[in-house]
Amino acid sequence: MDGSGTDNKWIGERTIRPDGADKVTGRATFGADFNLPGMLWGKVLRSPHAHARIKSINLKKAAALPGVKAAICSDDMVEFPLDTPVMVGPADLRFVSRNIMARDKVLYAGHPVAAVAATSVKIAEDALALIEVEYEVLPHVIDVDEAMMPDAPVLHDFLRTAGVDPKPTTASNVASRLEFKIGDLEAGFAAADVVIERSYKTKPVHQGYIEPHACLVSVAKDNQATIWSSSQGHFMVRSATAKMTGLNVADVRAIPAEIGGGFGGKTIIYLEPLALVMARKSGSPVKMVMTREEVFRATGPTSGSSNTVKIGATKDGKITAATATFRFQAGAFPGAPARPAASCAFAPYDIGNVQSIGYDVVMNRPKSNAYRAPGSPIAAFAVESTIDELARELGIDPLEFRLQNAAKEGTRAAYGPTFRKVGFVETLEAAQKHPHYSAPLGPNQGRGVASGFWFNVGGESSAQIHINEDGTVTVITGHPDIGGSRASMVNITAEMFGIDYHLVRAQIGDTNAIGISATTGGSRVTFSAGMAVTQVAEKVIQTLRERAAKIWDIEVDAVVWENGEARPAGSNAGDFEPLSLADIAAKAAATGGPITGQISINAQGAAPAFATHICDVEVDPDTGRVEILRYTAMQDVGRAIHPSYVEGQIQGGVAQGVGWALNEEYIYGDDGQMQNPGFLDYRMPVASDLPMIEAVVIEIPNDAHPHGVRGVGEVPIAPPMAAVANAIESAMGLRLNDLPMSPPKVLAGLDAKR
Amino acid sequence: MDGSGTDNKWIGERTIRPDGADKVTGRATFGADFNLPGMLWGKVLRSPHAHARIKSINLKKAAALPGVKAAICSDDMVEFPLDTPVMVGPADLRFVSRNIMARDKVLYAGHPVAAVAATSVKIAEDALALIEVEYEVLPHVIDVDEAMMPDAPVLHDFLRTAGVDPKPTTASNVASRLEFKIGDLEAGFAAADVVIERSYKTKPVHQGYIEPHACLVSVAKDNQATIWSSSQGHFMVRSATAKMTGLNVADVRAIPAEIGGGFGGKTIIYLEPLALVMARKSGSPVKMVMTREEVFRATGPTSGSSNTVKIGATKDGKITAATATFRFQAGAFPGAPARPAASCAFAPYDIGNVQSIGYDVVMNRPKSNAYRAPGSPIAAFAVESTIDELARELGIDPLEFRLQNAAKEGTRAAYGPTFRKVGFVETLEAAQKHPHYSAPLGPNQGRGVASGFWFNVGGESSAQIHINEDGTVTVITGHPDIGGSRASMVNITAEMFGIDYHLVRAQIGDTNAIGISATTGGSRVTFSAGMAVTQVAEKVIQTLRERAAKIWDIEVDAVVWENGEARPAGSNAGDFEPLSLADIAAKAAATGGPITGQISINAQGAAPAFATHICDVEVDPDTGRVEILRYTAMQDVGRAIHPSYVEGQIQGGVAQGVGWALNEEYIYGDDGQMQNPGFLDYRMPVASDLPMIEAVVIEIPNDAHPHGVRGVGEVPIAPPMAAVANAIESAMGLRLNDLPMSPPKVLAGLDAKR
Repeated sequence: MDGSGTDNKWIGERTIRPDGADKVTGRATFGADFNLPGMLWGKVLRSPHAHARIKSINLKKAAALPGVKAAICSDDMVEFPLDTPVMVGPADLRFVSRNIMARDKVLYAGHPVAAVAATSVKIAEDALALIEVEYEVLPHVIDVDEAMMPDAPVLHDFLRTAGVDPKPTTASNVASRLEFKIGDLEAGFAAADVVIERSYKTKPVHQGYIEPHACLVSVAKDNQATIWSSSQGHFMVRSATAKMTGLNVADVRAIPAEIGGGFGGKTIIYLEPLALVMARKSGSPVKMVMTREEVFRATGPTSGSSNTVKIGATKDGKITAATATFRFQAGAFPGAPARPAASCAFAPYDIGNVQSIGYDVVMNRPKSNAYRAPGSPIAAFAVESTIDELARELGIDPLEFRLQNAAKEGTRAAYGPTFRKVGFVETLEAAQKHPHYSAPLGPNQGRGVASGFWFNVGGESSAQIHINEDGTVTVITGHPDIGGSRASMVNITAEMFGIDYHLVRAQIGDTNAIGISATTGGSRVTFSAGMAVTQVAEKVIQTLRERAAKIWDIEVDAVVWENGEARPAGSNAGDFEPLSLADIAAKAAATGGPITGQISINAQGAAPAFATHICDVEVDPDTGRVEILRYTAMQDVGRAIHPSYVEGQIQGGVAQGVGWALNEEYIYGDDGQMQNPGFLDYRMPVASDLPMIEAVVIEIPNDAHPHGVRGVGEVPIAPPMAAVANAIESAMGLRLNDLPMSPPKVLAGLDAKR
Repeated sequence: MDGSGTDNKWIGERTIRPDGADKVTGRATFGADFNLPGMLWGKVLRSPHAHARIKSINLKKAAALPGVKAAICSDDMVEFPLDTPVMVGPADLRFVSRNIMARDKVLYAGHPVAAVAATSVKIAEDALALIEVEYEVLPHVIDVDEAMMPDAPVLHDFLRTAGVDPKPTTASNVASRLEFKIGDLEAGFAAADVVIERSYKTKPVHQGYIEPHACLVSVAKDNQATIWSSSQGHFMVRSATAKMTGLNVADVRAIPAEIGGGFGGKTIIYLEPLALVMARKSGSPVKMVMTREEVFRATGPTSGSSNTVKIGATKDGKITAATATFRFQAGAFPGAPARPAASCAFAPYDIGNVQSIGYDVVMNRPKSNAYRAPGSPIAAFAVESTIDELARELGIDPLEFRLQNAAKEGTRAAYGPTFRKVGFVETLEAAQKHPHYSAPLGPNQGRGVASGFWFNVGGESSAQIHINEDGTVTVITGHPDIGGSRASMVNITAEMFGIDYHLVRAQIGDTNAIGISATTGGSRVTFSAGMAVTQVAEKVIQTLRERAAKIWDIEVDAVVWENGEARPAGSNAGDFEPLSLADIAAKAAATGGPITGQISINAQGAAPAFATHICDVEVDPDTGRVEILRYTAMQDVGRAIHPSYVEGQIQGGVAQGVGWALNEEYIYGDDGQMQNPGFLDYRMPVASDLPMIEAVVIEIPNDAHPHGVRGVGEVPIAPPMAAVANAIESAMGLRLNDLPMSPPKVLAGLDAKR
């Protein structure tokens, strides 16, 4: 049953995508595509101030406007005391609830303070203008380094800098501090011949999904609620919405839409609880759809940051010690990915003496949220840039320098684990051998390399398999399909049963169809759901053998399942014609009932992914514009269940990383207002900005997964910023440590050199 | 775990109905409530002739009408050869497919010959008028006795009277003949002191559901289809539609609507395959909704019939022999319930010498379909009227006469089985003791009693239980909820887990949510799905005990589940606070993953239901109108899981039986056209026609079911026609053997007596 070999028939095949036809013909339904008769439109009133106390909210005039059916503020939502965490997965509802509807204070421009539901969008918008909010404006802080200053405006009185001062007496903006440490730093740096220490800054960048947040919520008179929305996890939607609206989980059904991109940004909700409360109040279904401006002003980008890295190495290229400090912008509430950043930072390298410190800091920005390998790209930009400088200083080829220090089986990472078999060395060797690495470069052109790391994760997944009455197979999982999980589950199921993949159809079950299935993210679904599907397929195959044994009246042990058929095994079993899935399915009722299987697991055994990228750039010395000429991404994926999707994930991660490297940033005025909340001014790369990105898929199987899967989607976004920075250095001798490396900064750097 | 005791907490409780709020507020979605953007409307062209050969169909002009997107006839549908049955449950697609779209011949006025899909209903109707069909009109036959004559117009050349002539050389309208026989009839009748032989006629009657057939079908470009429709079995919808349109079963998803009545009439489909083919052709979703006239002209009523019964008894009231012959109108294709009629006929009685013969006969009427206890009411009308005459002739109280001959544990029924514990005697004794039976009667008033029998059935059911993260419970089954199955599943689940029923929510899963679940009908769902839910609850409780053992680090055997909590059992187990469902659910991820269970079974052990009814009537001698004064229905239900629903089923069955008895009939002209295809002229009883019907629920548990369930919905429609006829005889000395006993017939009978 091990699919990680090369004799697989369907695993590793580029089968036709189950979601393809619907998506290219426009038939697929996304979050905003649901409608119900009598539906109302909900809109949110948002804070105009970066930081203010709410003195009063008067909803009366808005509620009285003809067509308005509900008007709410935080008084209408469940209040969670600040002293007890209320977790839904990694999200703390103390903060989520206060983020989706401000309580007492507004903490960023765009923070919701009230909402209305009306018979049209126009009436709802008119009603927002009638809501009277009295604010006491407070001083605000945007920058992470400023927010950490002792005299900074403080956002939350309850934050007492856990981990810094054991008994803090005053509040600060530092929500938490964490540290990983192994070995002896002093001795390590003392043993180094070269030590390089640099500071780096990154800006918050948005996940930039095409589809804004949208939902439709309907509530029956007995408070049974149904939610249609686009998210990365409808079980999260169900759980978080139920808790924030005071319902039992069983009272809420969450139905997933197709998702127009998430990238971590749809691992939490903004609208569903507001829509539910207004649907309950009004007695009518409520639909809410964000504008792009609302997405920018009030949904989580990943953190901006301010970091320092120091690495020492011997002349012959052995890293002896490394330290890093990461100061992360959490936005208005705690929750920045300082921990994964500190964990991932030095994970690719076998270094005996390491310290990694992370700070989670609040300030008057929208609450940050997960974005593809949260924290890892920020750490990689700092570490991989410093590594590049070290290699350059030592005169060692940067890939060779990484190879000399590469983590491998048995390496203990500073954040804890000792690696089983990993594929970092293989990505470096593949990069060395790739023609790209030795291709000639022209004037103003340069080549950079960088590597990256992501844990990959497992967790809760459920799966069902139904053998239909004609022998076709339905496989159901409970994770929204973001990166091709339906296609992967089809390949795995067809492989397991030994039947043509056209006979297998994959579905995403809603919360009333399948067992709890954790949010899609962390590069976990093909790993975890694939494990669940494999296990349930094994159960069903056992049932098929039992049914065949019953039909033939022989022992189960005398039946084998091979190539989609039950066959008698061994000379004593008897002489029977093989029974196909269709044959057995046709006799299911007579042999015990429908043939089905179901399983729920907490998948263990996730194994990390490593990537090494090569990037060629050309810098225009007159404009400072950086063009990506060629890009090759080597990645150990464990096993590519559906190679086209794997390549797509790698290409997508690189594209987003290039945007982060070169152009994307939140621009704030002194008033604490974001000045570029739209895709014209927030510059993401488009097709014409990028060359065809080559994905080199390396398969070092994860031995803890039945098909060798590791996870694919996260790690490709880690290396690009450093790869681009290192390529610019290679092209122009210009080292840039402050993202984005946009034309004005490149030009300023070149000017300073000239 | 046995719920059939009297110490149940939730089984037997009148809990609030899960479907109640939605139904009374209009929020529930029925078949015609679904809409999709860009949806087309499909309409069917129907034969104006009762019998004709189709010489040609020209769709060109219709297809060319602006707004028409698809026009189809039988050429567009899968053709099933006539020599091989293609079964979906009890339905043969050879006939279903030719019934929903005529091939070569039209067999009744209303038989579909073509269909169109257009951008509006108006355009679709205009297009129908442009379809050119050339017919060769053939002689037709409507009556079952005439259809059996040697010179009758023959509908199907392939029907060779299986079972009558071993090698038939000519076609006839007799599709099949069956016979049950035990004992020695000649000796039996010779031993009788009194023999009565009578002939009876019944008319076809329609199930009369409020909601006409309706569906919406959407097909993707890769032929993945979704069907929203109201039916008694969405797995049947999936299977039948897939096969009739040439798709794999896995390619079709059938989503059940709420159902506005079915009563057997929605155990088969009429529109879905047509809508699918037109959706596939046009590339747009297609919606089809029948008018009431279409429902009458082209969907299955139950059979009309022509029957003879002969029963002999000794002076002291012992039945010595009985024979019956049932000639059933199948309509245009084979499939009348002659077999269940012949089986049920004498099943209530312990008679040593019995013969029961059934004929399934085709004629130029709409194809008959299941209607509540198919065949049994027709048999009961004949047998229970004859029994009444016998009792009268012998001067024995009719209940006493039945008691003397009542089937009980150990009685062998002529149709095969030997009964386990049954409750017929208890229904008769309850009737004897009921105050109704001894209440005084006025002038022109009479009292009749009659009994009835139904097998009840088991079969394929699937169930899932999910323990949600807050300890609430979701239970999912796959049968449309027609008679309260969600409420019953909630009661059973709450009982099993020992938790408040508000914490349990029941859902009907679509075909992509739950394992195969056979059609709701035959009084099977509370029995079969209840068994599946019980078994899966036991599995989940075992998991809960395992998780508690893991949390406490003790052996599983040292954990018991009691009153919604895991407790350590015995003094050696250790001293732990009990763990509630919520406690264990909160730790599910850490103890192995989500807690869920699933099962699919072919439920065995169904046990029959018996009913005895008492009916008082008053006959208006001037108009012939019969008024129902009082009605009491005794029934052994095994165990009433939700008594309100049980009573509702009994009351509903009686109401339909009274309509069948007194007013309902299909009126045909000489041209073979139905003349009363609407609720104004086809007279069903309304609330003002009926007294409050008293249901007396008797519980003799079915020992093969974990909670004692037998099944409720069918048997209450069996006794009413005979009970009413016997009451009319009691009131006026008038014996009516020809249904309906409508005012003209009663008046004619009274006139003949006068």
